Amino acid sequence: MKIYVDAMGGDNAPQAIVEGTLEALRKDPELQVVLGGPVGEVEPLLGDAADVRDRISLDDAPEVITNHESPVMGVRKKTNSATVKGMLAVRDGSCDGFVSAGSTGAVLAGGMFRLGRIPGIERPALAPLMPNGKGHFMLIDCGANVDCKPEYLVQFGLMGDAYMRGVMGMEKPRIGLINIGAEAEKGNALVKATYPLMEQAPYHFVGNVEARDITGDQADVLVADGFSGNLVLKFMEGVAGTLMGIIKKEMMADLRGKLSGLIGKPAFRRVKKLMDYTEIGGAPLLGVQGAVVKAHGSSNAHAFASAIGQCRKMIRGRVVETISEGVKAMAPRE
Amino acid sequence: MKIYVDAMGGDNAPQAIVEGTLEALRKDPELQVVLGGPVGEVEPLLGDAADVRDRISLDDAPEVITNHESPVMGVRKKTNSATVKGMLAVRDGSCDGFVSAGSTGAVLAGGMFRLGRIPGIERPALAPLMPNGKGHFMLIDCGANVDCKPEYLVQFGLMGDAYMRGVMGMEKPRIGLINIGAEAEKGNALVKATYPLMEQAPYHFVGNVEARDITGDQADVLVADGFSGNLVLKFMEGVAGTLMGIIKKEMMADLRGKLSGLIGKPAFRRVKKLMDYTEIGGAPLLGVQGAVVKAHGSSNAHAFASAIGQCRKMIRGRVVETISEGVKAMAPRE
Repeated sequence: MKIYVDAMGGDNAPQAIVEGTLEALRKDPELQVVLGGPVGEVEPLLGDAADVRDRISLDDAPEVITNHESPVMGVRKKTNSATVKGMLAVRDGSCDGFVSAGSTGAVLAGGMFRLGRIPGIERPALAPLMPNGKGHFMLIDCGANVDCKPEYLVQFGLMGDAYMRGVMGMEKPRIGLINIGAEAEKGNALVKATYPLMEQAPYHFVGNVEARDITGDQADVLVADGFSGNLVLKFMEGVAGTLMGIIKKEMMADLRGKLSGLIGKPAFRRVKKLMDYTEIGGAPLLGVQGAVVKAHGSSNAHAFASAIGQCRKMIRGRVVETISEGVKAMAPRE
Repeated sequence: MKIYVDAMGGDNAPQAIVEGTLEALRKDPELQVVLGGPVGEVEPLLGDAADVRDRISLDDAPEVITNHESPVMGVRKKTNSATVKGMLAVRDGSCDGFVSAGSTGAVLAGGMFRLGRIPGIERPALAPLMPNGKGHFMLIDCGANVDCKPEYLVQFGLMGDAYMRGVMGMEKPRIGLINIGAEAEKGNALVKATYPLMEQAPYHFVGNVEARDITGDQADVLVADGFSGNLVLKFMEGVAGTLMGIIKKEMMADLRGKLSGLIGKPAFRRVKKLMDYTEIGGAPLLGVQGAVVKAHGSSNAHAFASAIGQCRKMIRGRVVETISEGVKAMAPRE
């Protein structure tokens, strides 16, 4: 198995990316990696990689698509970037998957225009895994498609189902539709039109999930249009941060609080770990013709290694093939 | 000043409603209240109200619109409900405002069809005040209008501006648009079309506010379509609840955590109070021809008294008149 890694993506590249790649290689002796980036910058970081060096090949990709340029233009013009070269390597079969902590827009555009959609899939979607205290749920889509049609949402459910079965080993993942009420007739025009289509879809649809229950473990996959999904994703970070800030402030306000904070440190550390995305890896881009994982831009080495591990599981779990078969089976119904 | 109170609305009616009304009357000697409900049920609760009894009149309204029926049908058929009688009392000027902890749908439908919109206002909106740790921000709309046009959102900003100036005494409230990115060109079709219109609007538009900054005190009024707004409202409850649950669980997991929880109790109590909606009152229904406040369904007496206080401030602060003048001034531009 060979995965193409964008060495220049993310806030801590290339150092953390290379370190994370080495961690992933040491964990899985069958893994091979192509490191794409400016060879002059990447190669010197492989100093202590002797034990895995024979499983790393370097691909000189001197161009970088940054967060500050149009992703579509970047993917079109910067053909010597790791994003473009990696997507093409997956397309021609020389690599099995692609992982990047770089520009989300560039990964989306590269997936759409260089790698290509799975035939029958209307829109690929970005699908992070989020903590709910008990485990994780998938949120799909979280921003790739801000304006959606009901058919897209139905397919998001199909893609999430394939991921949860292939990667997480679930037999019958629960697929829910994010809505403002639990009843079938609730919601805006989009979700009202989506609901009956999901009832017919070839997966375990558990109905609407209200926003207050998103973190309540009512579904394994939560489907939303990319605008709503992005609100949920970003708001979760915001509220959690605000609440932790308020707690900290109130604890520091008097001696009793300070003492409590000191004694409770291990418990708070466990809470932080439970809510920590770096243990999960990244967000798969589902619906394209290959295993693509977008790691968090602020990934450290360990988080990036997890993202590579996730990509590996997607390949082993045949997620792309399952989506492809699923969408073929659905097509005649429409 | 006379406010019509729906005595039968909410989980704790009529007991908590009547108690809250007495609390509000004792706080403001100029306040008069009409208590609408089945007189036989309401009157016996006024036993210890001798000091304010002369400022309470009872209006026999034997019918109740519940959460389990169509609000529109309820408002059409149950003409002897407090919701309908109260809205009509505000409409004919015999009362200045209306407060209910009952069915949100019934308050909306009553406001729309019995009380009526302010001329020029496209859609009234429900606008709760939410805690951000430092103070409160208004979220408008939070569910009354699930499918919106850009013009509605522009008017939501105008209504929020009028409320913040009239009730909170702000000189120049900051009006923000909830979006998935800070840049003007971000978002779905709706918010992209709304942004340039808000730039032209006669209030202090501060641009897009990303979901992660909703609780970050970047705006005093946050505008959203009712679907997105409801997601934000309900998700905030959900995440906060989940996070507090995780913290509690981890603290109870060992002796050290338990000790920390015990010592930190006063700090946690302060956090809870900061995040507590009952101190705020209810959500104003803005855009109708009167001061209408929807109190939380689970309001206790104190929360309901706060909702009456909020309605009082809306009347004193001339919120309805300000919205009416604002929309008239905007009209020629369109």
